[in-house]
Amino acid sequence: MSRHWWQEACRVPDDSARGAAFQRDAQLTKPPGALGRVESLVPQLAALQGCQRPTLEHIWIAVFAGDHGVAEEGVSAFPQAVTGQMLGNFVNGGAAISVLAGQLGARLEVIDLGTATRLQPLPAVRHLALGPGTRNFTQAAAMSGETCQHAMAAGRDSVLRARQQQTDLFIGGEMGIGNTTTAAALACALLGCKPQSLAGPGTGLDAAGVAHKCAVIERALAFHAGAHDTLGWMQRLGGFELAALTGTYIACAQQGIVALVDGFICSVAALCAMRLNPACREWLLFAHRSAEPGHAAVLAELDAQPLLDLGLRLGEGSGAALAVPLLRLACALHDGMATFAEAAVAAKQR
Amino acid sequence: MSRHWWQEACRVPDDSARGAAFQRDAQLTKPPGALGRVESLVPQLAALQGCQRPTLEHIWIAVFAGDHGVAEEGVSAFPQAVTGQMLGNFVNGGAAISVLAGQLGARLEVIDLGTATRLQPLPAVRHLALGPGTRNFTQAAAMSGETCQHAMAAGRDSVLRARQQQTDLFIGGEMGIGNTTTAAALACALLGCKPQSLAGPGTGLDAAGVAHKCAVIERALAFHAGAHDTLGWMQRLGGFELAALTGTYIACAQQGIVALVDGFICSVAALCAMRLNPACREWLLFAHRSAEPGHAAVLAELDAQPLLDLGLRLGEGSGAALAVPLLRLACALHDGMATFAEAAVAAKQR
Repeated sequence: MSRHWWQEACRVPDDSARGAAFQRDAQLTKPPGALGRVESLVPQLAALQGCQRPTLEHIWIAVFAGDHGVAEEGVSAFPQAVTGQMLGNFVNGGAAISVLAGQLGARLEVIDLGTATRLQPLPAVRHLALGPGTRNFTQAAAMSGETCQHAMAAGRDSVLRARQQQTDLFIGGEMGIGNTTTAAALACALLGCKPQSLAGPGTGLDAAGVAHKCAVIERALAFHAGAHDTLGWMQRLGGFELAALTGTYIACAQQGIVALVDGFICSVAALCAMRLNPACREWLLFAHRSAEPGHAAVLAELDAQPLLDLGLRLGEGSGAALAVPLLRLACALHDGMATFAEAAVAAKQR
Repeated sequence: MSRHWWQEACRVPDDSARGAAFQRDAQLTKPPGALGRVESLVPQLAALQGCQRPTLEHIWIAVFAGDHGVAEEGVSAFPQAVTGQMLGNFVNGGAAISVLAGQLGARLEVIDLGTATRLQPLPAVRHLALGPGTRNFTQAAAMSGETCQHAMAAGRDSVLRARQQQTDLFIGGEMGIGNTTTAAALACALLGCKPQSLAGPGTGLDAAGVAHKCAVIERALAFHAGAHDTLGWMQRLGGFELAALTGTYIACAQQGIVALVDGFICSVAALCAMRLNPACREWLLFAHRSAEPGHAAVLAELDAQPLLDLGLRLGEGSGAALAVPLLRLACALHDGMATFAEAAVAAKQR
C-alpha cells in the first residue's frame, strides 16, 4: 500500500539556529530568563525558521467553514444558518478575524468546505462544496473516507498557497455551528474520555444544554464503537473543517512553516495531526487556553503550554491572531536589544 | 493642615460611555462574551476615556531609575553600577523597553532620580539628582520626608507632560538594583506579611540569596517598627522610583489617564497609591503576573486580574508594553466588527 501524503516526513528543525539564538539571548542586556515565555519563544522560532533572528512579517490566516449534521440534535445556541452567513462577514471585514487580520497585516483566506444553507457564491471565498455539511454522526458516519481526504487536502493546499507567499507563520481558523460538539466527540474518542469531562458550553449553552450535548456525544461514541484509528474517527465524527485543519498542521510541518494553533477545535485537529504524523508536533505553537473546559485535557495530551489565558471561546483563528503581537515583539526584542558588551553594562556577578 | 496634591480628588469614570460600549459589544457578530477578557476591557476603557469607542494611539512610557542603599547588603545578583549604566542603554535604544517603545510607537521618557555612581549627564535623560541612591534602610530611613515628596512629584510631573501630548495610556517602568528588596519590604509593611511570603529571586538570586534577602528585610522591618502610615513606610523603606511611580498612578487618576501597571515593583507602588488615595484604583489596569512570587499577594490586595502570565521579571515597564497590543486589538475589534444587523447574521437563539 502506498503511503499517504500526510505520512510523509516532516522537516527537521535547525538545532544550530536554535543554539545561535540561545547564545545571542544570553548576551542581551537583561537578567538571564527575565523575559520568561517571551524569551523562550525565540530559540524555538529560530530552529523552525532556520535562522538566528526569526521574523514574523508575513502571516497567513485560513478560515475553514463547514456545517455539522449533528446540529439537528440541538447542540448549539446559534442556528445553523450562521455558518453560511458568517462567510460573507469574513470577507466583508466585519468578523473578529477580519478585523484582526487587517490589524496584523495578515493575508486572510476563507474556505467554504460545505454549508447546510444554499449560498450565492462569494467572489472572495473558495467554495469547495464537499457536501451540505456533514451527516448527523449520531446516525451515520459524518463523511466518507474519500471526503475526509478531500478536506485534509484542502488544508494542505492552503498551506501550499501560503508557502508561495513566503509565509512566516500559518494560522488556521474554523467556523461551523455545532463544531464544539464534533471536537469534543473526537477528543473523547482519541483520549478515551467521557463527554462530561470534555464537552462544554461552546457558543453559550446552559447547563441543561451541555448535559444534552454530552448525551448526544455518548450516543455517537456507542454508535461508532467499531472505529479503530484516528482517520476512522475523523471520518465518522467529522467535521470538514477539523479534517482540513489537521491537514494544515501536517502540511506546515512538511513545508517548514510555523503553525500557531488557536483554541479547542484547532487543538483537537492538532491532536489528530500528531496522531497521524507525530513529528509535526514540533512545528506547532499554541496561542491560548480557551474557556471551553475540554481544552485543558487536549493541551495536556499535546504537552502544550499556550501563551494566553483570556477566557476566549470565539474560534475563527481569533485567539491565535491575538497572540501574534507577542511573538512579533519577542522577535523584535531578540533582534533589537543591545548586548552587555555593546551597551557597556555589567553582567550578572554571581 | 492643608491637603497634599495626592489627596485631591480623582476623576470619576464615565458610566454612560461604559454602558454605550456594553451595548455596542452585545450587537457585534460573535457569541456574547466569546472574546473573554479582551472583550471586557473595552467598556472599562470606554468609561475611563469617556467615549464609546476607546483608542490607544498615544502611549507614554516613563522609566524611573534610582539606586538603593540596601544594595550594600548584597541582595542583588547584579552590581549597583548597572542602574546608571542602563540609563544610557534606555536612551540609546538597546534596552528591552527601548525596543518595545519603538515597536509600539510610544514616547519613552527616562528619569534618573538618583544613582550611586557618578554619571556624565545624558542629554536624553532627565537627571533629577534626589541623592546618590537611597540610604541603607536597615540602618536609617531610606530618604527624608521631603525627598519622598520630591520623588512623588517627579512621577506626577511626568503624567502632566504625558497629558500635554494627548496620551491615551500611561506606562510607568522602573530600574534600580536592589528594588525587589525595597518593594518586598514595603509590601510586607503594608500587608502585614513575613518576608518569606513576599521576597523572591529578583534578577536571579539562588535560594541562599533569597534567604539572606528575607533576613535583611526582617531587620529593616524591626528597625522601622515605629512607622505608622503609608507615607512613613515609603520614606523609611524607599525607593525613589517606587515613590515616583506612586505619584504617577495618583496623578493619572486625577488627570483622567488610564495607567497600565507593570510587574511586582510597580504593583507595590500601585498599592501605595491606593492606600494614599483609594479612588485611583479605578484608573489602573494590570498587565501581567510576574515570576516574582510576592506579586500574587500584592495583586490580590489590589483585586487585580492581570492580562498576561508569562513568567516575566524584567521591569522597565516591559511587561506592560508587551500587553499593549492586546489592548489595542480589543479596541480595534470593538470599533471595527460588524453588528448582527449590519452583517445580516442571525443572533443567539436561546
